[in-house]
Amino acid sequence: MAQPLTMETECLELRTRHPFIIARGGRSEYRTIWVRLRDADGHEGWGEATPSSFYGETAETVRAALERYAGALPADPFDIEETERRWEASLRINASARAALSGALHDLVGKRLGVPLYRLWGLDPAKAPRSTFTIGLDTPERIRLKVQEAAEYPILKIKLGTERDVEILRTIRDATDKEIRVDANCGWTLKQAVAMLPVLQEFGVTVLEQPLPPDQIAGLAEISRRAAIPVVADESCRTAVDIPPLVGAVDGINIKLAKCGSLREALRMIAVARAHGLMVMVGCMIESSLGITAAAHFTPLVDIVDLDGAALLARDPFVGATIAGGQVALPDGPGLGLRKR
Amino acid sequence: MAQPLTMETECLELRTRHPFIIARGGRSEYRTIWVRLRDADGHEGWGEATPSSFYGETAETVRAALERYAGALPADPFDIEETERRWEASLRINASARAALSGALHDLVGKRLGVPLYRLWGLDPAKAPRSTFTIGLDTPERIRLKVQEAAEYPILKIKLGTERDVEILRTIRDATDKEIRVDANCGWTLKQAVAMLPVLQEFGVTVLEQPLPPDQIAGLAEISRRAAIPVVADESCRTAVDIPPLVGAVDGINIKLAKCGSLREALRMIAVARAHGLMVMVGCMIESSLGITAAAHFTPLVDIVDLDGAALLARDPFVGATIAGGQVALPDGPGLGLRKR
Repeated sequence: MAQPLTMETECLELRTRHPFIIARGGRSEYRTIWVRLRDADGHEGWGEATPSSFYGETAETVRAALERYAGALPADPFDIEETERRWEASLRINASARAALSGALHDLVGKRLGVPLYRLWGLDPAKAPRSTFTIGLDTPERIRLKVQEAAEYPILKIKLGTERDVEILRTIRDATDKEIRVDANCGWTLKQAVAMLPVLQEFGVTVLEQPLPPDQIAGLAEISRRAAIPVVADESCRTAVDIPPLVGAVDGINIKLAKCGSLREALRMIAVARAHGLMVMVGCMIESSLGITAAAHFTPLVDIVDLDGAALLARDPFVGATIAGGQVALPDGPGLGLRKR
Repeated sequence: MAQPLTMETECLELRTRHPFIIARGGRSEYRTIWVRLRDADGHEGWGEATPSSFYGETAETVRAALERYAGALPADPFDIEETERRWEASLRINASARAALSGALHDLVGKRLGVPLYRLWGLDPAKAPRSTFTIGLDTPERIRLKVQEAAEYPILKIKLGTERDVEILRTIRDATDKEIRVDANCGWTLKQAVAMLPVLQEFGVTVLEQPLPPDQIAGLAEISRRAAIPVVADESCRTAVDIPPLVGAVDGINIKLAKCGSLREALRMIAVARAHGLMVMVGCMIESSLGITAAAHFTPLVDIVDLDGAALLARDPFVGATIAGGQVALPDGPGLGLRKR
């Protein structure tokens, strides 16, 4: 065990089937970083970093951060708690880089023990909920096309936060009777959000995610008071310490590995949210099945799943957790249970 | 995996070296229940239930509750999350019975995988803090004797909550320069507690545990405001949902498996406490090394350890985690790492 782990990184060029556009903009091409940790016996643990410019990351900052973290790789991959603490102490922020390493350590440990990660965590994969599938911002014609293409998914998540929100909602509701949830990605003012509440009700929306900018906690509380549907914080909630200030202001929190930087922190966030009676959602970035699968392993503990990042890709370089027919299905191989396509 | 686990229970008759007396009374003889779960391959997982009359339990209620829970043993010992949920749904309260089963499942999983529980949890055993050793209520002469007998322990925990508290503190402080912490076990009124604060300061006490009855949260807040030392909630805090109402009222919480009923719940409580910036303590009942060891496995995550339950015994039927010299030392065998003496 004296021999430290070694790290390799590789840039993945991902392309979505359609340009993926949200309130802050969008595009078709995404670069993520595939991290491989290898032990002396040749076991490998894999993880994926999904740089988010909203959180100050690019593929280049992620690779640079990974180089820094590689200086503090553990000799023993089981030593995850202290290793993650060291990484965060050596370089803060850079959550997606740390999430990739966290995923890789958990993958490696599961492979060494020969058991899937969900099993190490004591979870029943049959408890994984259904996942939404996201319809990004687009023209009415292309939105109708996307709704058709999403035929297999029973729950749609709609990106809003534009001047055309009512039109978008109407286009989608005219095209389908499915359950729809809305994500405004911080795109509304309090006034706009309050004005949208009856519209959301009219179109039968069941969940409203992040209507306001991250710091507007009082505004979120105002919206939650007025809304008949659950309001979920995403950009307002990165790690577990962000949860207590949100209590009373929202009905739930959205956990993303790219925000919290650690699978262990994700489990801690679930514990904190539950102690406060909050709903728990897990979300993702545009990423391959590698990153999606890491998050999928804790879906048996959550209420709302939005893990469509890989399903939106034209070509997914990995085979792992799937959301075929909208149902999260966990792979039963050891660790994360992934293979390269 | 289709064959369900089987359960056996056995009553352990434990005797403390001295009668162990706290504010609510005390005695020398304690009965705990040794729980053994066995899988089809003959692997065994062990746990210990320590009935607490304060929480409505006797050895008989524990055995009866265990019989009920045995009707919902999992076919797969890895399926812990849902199993614990089922147990709690089938019969509430009875935390020490559920804690024994939780410990036994974790022991069995660790043994099947061939790794110590702390390692499954990603923890570094070298981070385990030192444990206090408790001096129960007694006459000045016998207290002096106990302090002598506790020579190897660098930190003493003193039970108070009597008419003779100042005398007890003085007796101990006259006998030793060691760090001392105080546990009033709900034994004071707010007025008494406020009057005791300068006395605790005079004698150099470093931690004050549960000065008031469980429900007196406002009183705890008043004491915390006035106290120069951390105030820790024990009887006021059983499970994770008890923590949010204590935020601002105390500086830390004391986790006991006999209160929270689950090793997983203990980890969740740590996450919740940390998200609120609270200190975390782990405590115990009078119990053998079997129960102590289950709690010892998560000590790398806590600040304050009081796991002297087995060290107070005249004869400990198990060999597991130890607190020799006051340092928590985790066994490195698989699962809980215990053996029968």
